Amino acid sequence: MSEKKRIVISRYIGERAMSLLNELDRDEWDIILWKENEPASREWIEKNVPNATGLLVLLTDKVNESLLEIAGPSLRIVSTMSVGYDHVDTSALRKRGIKLGFTPDVLTFAVADLTVLLCLMATRNAGEGLTLVKNGQWPNLAFGPFTLCGPQIGAGVDGTKPYTVGFVGFGRIAQATLKRLAPYDISRCIYTNSTSRQAPGPQAPSEADKELAKSLGVGEIFAAPLDYVAKESDLVIVLAPGGPSTMHIIDERFLRAMKNHAVLVNTSRGTLVDTDALVTALREKWIWGTGLDVVEGEPLIKADHPLLALPRAVVLPHIGSATTDTREAMAMLAVTNLVNGVLGRELEREVKI
Amino acid sequence: MSEKKRIVISRYIGERAMSLLNELDRDEWDIILWKENEPASREWIEKNVPNATGLLVLLTDKVNESLLEIAGPSLRIVSTMSVGYDHVDTSALRKRGIKLGFTPDVLTFAVADLTVLLCLMATRNAGEGLTLVKNGQWPNLAFGPFTLCGPQIGAGVDGTKPYTVGFVGFGRIAQATLKRLAPYDISRCIYTNSTSRQAPGPQAPSEADKELAKSLGVGEIFAAPLDYVAKESDLVIVLAPGGPSTMHIIDERFLRAMKNHAVLVNTSRGTLVDTDALVTALREKWIWGTGLDVVEGEPLIKADHPLLALPRAVVLPHIGSATTDTREAMAMLAVTNLVNGVLGRELEREVKI
Repeated sequence: MSEKKRIVISRYIGERAMSLLNELDRDEWDIILWKENEPASREWIEKNVPNATGLLVLLTDKVNESLLEIAGPSLRIVSTMSVGYDHVDTSALRKRGIKLGFTPDVLTFAVADLTVLLCLMATRNAGEGLTLVKNGQWPNLAFGPFTLCGPQIGAGVDGTKPYTVGFVGFGRIAQATLKRLAPYDISRCIYTNSTSRQAPGPQAPSEADKELAKSLGVGEIFAAPLDYVAKESDLVIVLAPGGPSTMHIIDERFLRAMKNHAVLVNTSRGTLVDTDALVTALREKWIWGTGLDVVEGEPLIKADHPLLALPRAVVLPHIGSATTDTREAMAMLAVTNLVNGVLGRELEREVKI
Repeated sequence: MSEKKRIVISRYIGERAMSLLNELDRDEWDIILWKENEPASREWIEKNVPNATGLLVLLTDKVNESLLEIAGPSLRIVSTMSVGYDHVDTSALRKRGIKLGFTPDVLTFAVADLTVLLCLMATRNAGEGLTLVKNGQWPNLAFGPFTLCGPQIGAGVDGTKPYTVGFVGFGRIAQATLKRLAPYDISRCIYTNSTSRQAPGPQAPSEADKELAKSLGVGEIFAAPLDYVAKESDLVIVLAPGGPSTMHIIDERFLRAMKNHAVLVNTSRGTLVDTDALVTALREKWIWGTGLDVVEGEPLIKADHPLLALPRAVVLPHIGSATTDTREAMAMLAVTNLVNGVLGRELEREVKI
């Protein structure tokens, strides 16, 4: 075995990010790199991780007890190129004193853009339209006045219709999404956060809410309980963290409370939405449609998944942060965290575990 | 034959619009209505149009010399439920003194929304992503850092990247589109109009340009020649009228001048883009991708159309104005034009022919 210290990188992460590894003296450090665009096999990771000081992973790599056992006591840092860390057993890291780096913020705009995209796709029948054209059915499409018509986001034809956007979770990505929706003339934005979620009724707008409403030109913004968001919103956008506290936060009760013409968009984590209840809601027309970038059990969503048979469900394969700019910035931040971690420095962005 | 005067309506246009016909005394007027959502057959129109005073049509109904001959000298008004009127022979109307009503403005927001949708779909690989998921390929998708990545609209991860949106045509819909793109941080908007198109170089911003830039928070806005828009834009949006003067305005020369990472979106008329040149541009990667709501020769776009084999081409079946709100407003305006026309009053919205 080499006497050098080693770091293991489970994915090709692009030249710009790789160049940041030049800070590590190669006489002292072995850099073990999976060079392909596909995920490294579990076997490859397990073979290379023993005695590693640092490990860089992506969402598809599970970092659990067994992997940490294999890695051994040398491991100081796990750096994930993602904002979520459901794939990492944080308590297993904590008890070993291993730091966890992640890549928040740099993906805010890319995910907000994709959220707007799904709001528009789901309301405007873009999934069904695209499929019709691909299948050669455009020539036979009855061009009736209401063919493929959907609800219009915002204040409507003459700008006077009240329109409410509801957010489940109202962090940076949600606020960037609201900023992008503001030009559609949004009269009201209501949101839940961890305190308002179970409150007895809507809350008075905070000073921050008032300032945001003014700067974006949105009628009013305030926090409210979950059932109020369900009942009052024309468009519900789910942008909350995953984990046990938000598991199936969108359930049958929530979906039944929604307006018939309302649309549900989820670009955060699949676990937040009870898929079976959503399928029923679409089949029985409790709601108008849905746009999803994340689905429970992904990526194991096969062609016979019940969501995929529903024309009003638009499903994308978790591409929220998939812009070249953003992924490059995430890769660079992940490598910076890794290098800082193995050199015993403060991480640029550390998950407090 | 009935001695009543008659109006002919070639499509089911919804209850709210139909109720506006109550202004016509049924002892005096026969209302001949095609009740289905599909287009009326040519045969049905030709059978019913003789001696009509008014005719309401949609884009799929050709109003030409032969139809006007069949209608006879009683016809006073053709009311089309559309903003475009390529399907109407205006000179044939003019020489008979028949008025033409249309339905502009009410569809501005719906088309602007769909234009943003196509900008996002084309840059973010939404067509390919959707197809992958539908075909059950999500489980096998190599989740590499750059899988399905596309260019990011706007100023990028840290908000500092210059980004230019170019418009070919800069009327109401284009300006409403720019308003919706402004939150993505657009440093520059350049546009052609009928005067700047052939000018030797970019023009100084007009007062209106400066005011619009200030109100939207866009860095600068100015008119420029067509080749300047091609060369300088990261995103080109075609929103100009159809007809001979704009036929194939986007041709091989334009596409070759575009940036390799740029995207072309057309939500106006298919005739503005040379489809063969666009197919070559995508195959040979002169440009990054395209989003189209309109295609030359539509709706006869079959499954073997060369555009549909290209993963970076997103094609929707002309649903720009397809929201329930907008189509209802268009139907109501079309009926108002029709009623005003047959009663000899000023039209609400008349095409000056």
